[in-house]
Amino acid sequence: MFPKNAWYVAATADEISDKPLGRTICGERIAFYRGAEGRLAAVEDFCPHRGAPLSLGHVKDGVLVCGYHGLHMGCDGKAVSMPGQRVRGFPAIRSFAVEERYGFIWVWPGDAALADKATIPQQHWYDDPEWAYGGGRFHIACDYRLMIDNLMDLTHETYVHASSIGQKEIDEVPCKTTVDGNTVTTSRFMEGITPPPFWKMALRGNNLSDEGLVDRWQICRFTPPASVMIEVGVAHAGHGGYEAAPEHKVYSVVVDFMTPETETSIHYFWGMARKFKPDDAALTDSIRAGQHTIFSEDLQMLEMQQKNLLAHPARALLMLNIDAGGVQSRKVLQRLIDAENTPTTGASA
Amino acid sequence: MFPKNAWYVAATADEISDKPLGRTICGERIAFYRGAEGRLAAVEDFCPHRGAPLSLGHVKDGVLVCGYHGLHMGCDGKAVSMPGQRVRGFPAIRSFAVEERYGFIWVWPGDAALADKATIPQQHWYDDPEWAYGGGRFHIACDYRLMIDNLMDLTHETYVHASSIGQKEIDEVPCKTTVDGNTVTTSRFMEGITPPPFWKMALRGNNLSDEGLVDRWQICRFTPPASVMIEVGVAHAGHGGYEAAPEHKVYSVVVDFMTPETETSIHYFWGMARKFKPDDAALTDSIRAGQHTIFSEDLQMLEMQQKNLLAHPARALLMLNIDAGGVQSRKVLQRLIDAENTPTTGASA
Amino acid sequence: MFPKNAWYVAATADEISDKPLGRTICGERIAFYRGAEGRLAAVEDFCPHRGAPLSLGHVKDGVLVCGYHGLHMGCDGKAVSMPGQRVRGFPAIRSFAVEERYGFIWVWPGDAALADKATIPQQHWYDDPEWAYGGGRFHIACDYRLMIDNLMDLTHETYVHASSIGQKEIDEVPCKTTVDGNTVTTSRFMEGITPPPFWKMALRGNNLSDEGLVDRWQICRFTPPASVMIEVGVAHAGHGGYEAAPEHKVYSVVVDFMTPETETSIHYFWGMARKFKPDDAALTDSIRAGQHTIFSEDLQMLEMQQKNLLAHPARALLMLNIDAGGVQSRKVLQRLIDAENTPTTGASA
Repeated sequence: MFPKNAWYVAATADEISDKPLGRTICGERIAFYRGAEGRLAAVEDFCPHRGAPLSLGHVKDGVLVCGYHGLHMGCDGKAVSMPGQRVRGFPAIRSFAVEERYGFIWVWPGDAALADKATIPQQHWYDDPEWAYGGGRFHIACDYRLMIDNLMDLTHETYVHASSIGQKEIDEVPCKTTVDGNTVTTSRFMEGITPPPFWKMALRGNNLSDEGLVDRWQICRFTPPASVMIEVGVAHAGHGGYEAAPEHKVYSVVVDFMTPETETSIHYFWGMARKFKPDDAALTDSIRAGQHTIFSEDLQMLEMQQKNLLAHPARALLMLNIDAGGVQSRKVLQRLIDAENTPTTGASA
Repeated sequence: MFPKNAWYVAATADEISDKPLGRTICGERIAFYRGAEGRLAAVEDFCPHRGAPLSLGHVKDGVLVCGYHGLHMGCDGKAVSMPGQRVRGFPAIRSFAVEERYGFIWVWPGDAALADKATIPQQHWYDDPEWAYGGGRFHIACDYRLMIDNLMDLTHETYVHASSIGQKEIDEVPCKTTVDGNTVTTSRFMEGITPPPFWKMALRGNNLSDEGLVDRWQICRFTPPASVMIEVGVAHAGHGGYEAAPEHKVYSVVVDFMTPETETSIHYFWGMARKFKPDDAALTDSIRAGQHTIFSEDLQMLEMQQKNLLAHPARALLMLNIDAGGVQSRKVLQRLIDAENTPTTGASA
Repeated sequence: MFPKNAWYVAATADEISDKPLGRTICGERIAFYRGAEGRLAAVEDFCPHRGAPLSLGHVKDGVLVCGYHGLHMGCDGKAVSMPGQRVRGFPAIRSFAVEERYGFIWVWPGDAALADKATIPQQHWYDDPEWAYGGGRFHIACDYRLMIDNLMDLTHETYVHASSIGQKEIDEVPCKTTVDGNTVTTSRFMEGITPPPFWKMALRGNNLSDEGLVDRWQICRFTPPASVMIEVGVAHAGHGGYEAAPEHKVYSVVVDFMTPETETSIHYFWGMARKFKPDDAALTDSIRAGQHTIFSEDLQMLEMQQKNLLAHPARALLMLNIDAGGVQSRKVLQRLIDAENTPTTGASA
């Protein structure tokens, strides 16, 4: 239940160095590696000789060499050579469109002919010197849509993250969901509230007073197939909130890619991009550690929710106003999945 | 293969304090918690909002609050409130009849309307100052009926527990099984035998001589759905055995509740109630430790027996005289299960 | 997909002492033990009384006693006695032909009536004082035929074992496969090459110079059901290679029994028999440790290859010249399996 003709984050760029990386993305076992001139390549993790995992091999002169019997695999999935063999007639394996960009490895698990690198979603903060980024990765045994639901409805912060970013005002202030093409946005603006511990820390980290009330905002944006970007911030109360001048506010973007591994498990890439103190590496580490703690609190909930849903497949869940972000995101996804499964007469999907 | 309209021990009373407890009983995932005035409540461990496990939530003012988005669940399975929502139309979840009694939490996993608290089996030793109790809990991957078999045929003590309570006389003296309504009793009386290590310890603990021969008895009583109480004891030989005067004997009741978790796993609550030195906490600990060691010896046997039976589902087992206790107990259970599955015209089951 | 009417190595002799050993061989759960006069016996690991695993029992006066309720099981699968019972009518369980020979326990998981101990393959090195043996055992989650493939095509040494016994010449020199009845032989002779680290160590261990070039050979012999013996060695170059005089060469036999546990797991018994310094126990240990390290390198590859094949059951693999050893071995096996499944009118299989 995921679109295959789409760009997914498969890894962070630093995960793939000299050695290949084997990882399953949307049900496809893929061997990622750096080929000629460090360019990324991705092929099925299945040697056409005897089915060995190519990701256990090594890269030699830009070519992936199977670690079992030495077949040299090209980045197009065609065998290049093998000691003592003619490889011309060897069956090809699948190759995948892959691209390194914004510090991530992006892969297109569907039809590579349809992959347009121009559609990789821009991460504006990546090479902007005014911004800094820190993040991490979790493996979670849940449907990626449960994580989308989670992030498109931040009322859960009040309960799951009560000791860090949660506060009762999140519950009390209604959110609003809008759909614009394939983008779903859920926003919540809270005025004149006490900042929770995380934002007090951020204010101090930005040399702003952490005393007094603030206006707080959360703007969650889902874009398919599996990304939720959340603009979050606080401003000293009464200075314009989201629109306040820089000296009155602190803000950042919570970055979330929840890449399906299987129907019921994900590689969850999370992080925070901030537009303050971009050179303060210690602050980056501190925020990452805080975020790690907060996001860890969701793991058990999501995995047990998944088990509950598998145990009761026929039970209908509620779709309240707070769920609108997740509900609308699922509609976008379903439309894309349906389109993939509909035969087309034209060339594009 | 278990009756659902029956009282089962779900937990010991101390397992449920401020936090809810999630536990599967007879295939039902249940969230147990203390509601208003500490009264026990038990509902499906499934929030009707999005399927989150309610047992990960918390209790506030006697109401169970879902830890994901804050739905307040009543002890009757109907949503009480939810921030920013009208819950009137929310679907109800199941609630279960539950009762705290005798230091245990009892649950009725079937139709709550049929649950009569008067039928919770009395544990006479619980509030009798002349008695003391100590026990523990194991999770075992076996059909609960294999544990009933185990406890209704103590000849296994000779082999499984050779170093503690086993002795060859158990094998040599025939046992006798009787059925009275739903109660199955298997008794064995051994006269003029050497007490095994456990009973020597018990004699000494009761300030009785551990030298010389004893008469020993074992009276196992199964009552449905999943309880076996075993009267056990020894008396100095020739003083009347089971009927001997208190100054010549030491005795106790082995308490066993083998609550099904699934068809092939149980929560096994075991313990010993004794009518001597009830205030000696060190003796309670010592007996509990000894019983823990002894009952641990059964675990591997039962789990491997279960695997063997699953691997050979069609193979018929023997039903010898020593097996009569288990065989008769299974007949009682089957009768109750059949009755549950038979449509009735009246209101009671 | 394995012959059942054949001798398999089930254990090393030292694995079965006073206590029985439970082990699954070709899908059969078997209890192995030493009966009267230490003679090996093997019966189904299933007590006919209540299905308990007999391997959890003990041996008393040469008879296997069930550890649950004391049934005495004869080595022919018929109950001998049981306390307080007449066992005459008890159903028998299967017994298996079993034999201790050459330091191994051999079992015939099929029809015991067809088992001819004369067909247990001779291990000439076992009681020859000029030879020494050391080995070990791994449990690997793969089809036993993947291990046969592995051992009948040593080109993988170049890649999997690059740091110990691999070298590029193995890849460069073609191998030759022949079939003689049920024996498949794949040979490779490399002349005038630099010895890899393992063989330099072996040369030094044999008081031979490890400098200069050597001729190297590998002669892999598969015999069904699940054995590959590999004659391996090096000789100082130009002295006749495989045929060189003893003072110019060092050689040994790699011993491999890959006994199926299930369709996708094996008990892999590996070792090396050498005809030099047979009394040097430290050398035996050193070789065993080296072999342990080398064979460990295959584990992950084989288990992930197995997973790949299970995920793509319909995908055809290549059968190159280097694969001929494995391909021919599988043909021999298939012929034997087909013969077992064909009704015969005569008495032999």
